[in-house]
Amino acid sequence: MPDPSPPITIANFQRLIREMYLEKDLARGVDGTFMWLMEEVGELAGALRSGTHEERLGEFADVLAWLATIANVVGIDLTEAVTRKYGTGCPGCGQLVCVCADAEKP
Amino acid sequence: MPDPSPPITIANFQRLIREMYLEKDLARGVDGTFMWLMEEVGELAGALRSGTHEERLGEFADVLAWLATIANVVGIDLTEAVTRKYGTGCPGCGQLVCVCADAEKP
Repeated sequence: MPDPSPPITIANFQRLIREMYLEKDLARGVDGTFMWLMEEVGELAGALRSGTHEERLGEFADVLAWLATIANVVGIDLTEAVTRKYGTGCPGCGQLVCVCADAEKP
Repeated sequence: MPDPSPPITIANFQRLIREMYLEKDLARGVDGTFMWLMEEVGELAGALRSGTHEERLGEFADVLAWLATIANVVGIDLTEAVTRKYGTGCPGCGQLVCVCADAEKP
């Protein structure tokens, strides 16, 4: 079955979340927003342990949304973030397919 | 200053992380991988409290990477996840600019 979801860039998702929530996010601030992220991370843990595929979809989306929200509050461009860190291979070993020792990060 | 980072889709980022780490991720499993996510979330908290812009960029990237890794392990398409939940506006109120009460999620 082909993926029914059209491509969305990281930048467009971050912009969508900004348009939806930035006013509230700024009023709440980083600390309050981080608390929401933590709540969603907990819900993701629950969905990973005992949730359905549908529930997991929702929880992954929520964690991504709260992460984008915090990035918006502190002026981080998520595209720049991931491109710098992972755009040229594993930051540990520099290979596209990581060959770092298992005990090492990542 | 124009953004120097070329657009990257959520799907391409998830695929990049899959190619880089899937073999290790599958061996580690969901629980072990989630522990790494938590470590990175802690480092993000530290960078938000007292880190530089550069350090924050790195920590946001790492949290996104570990989230993508867990999604790969459990077969979740992050594009599908965010499109379903946020593609038609705030899941709470249905508006593009959220009008949910402040005490409500999100």
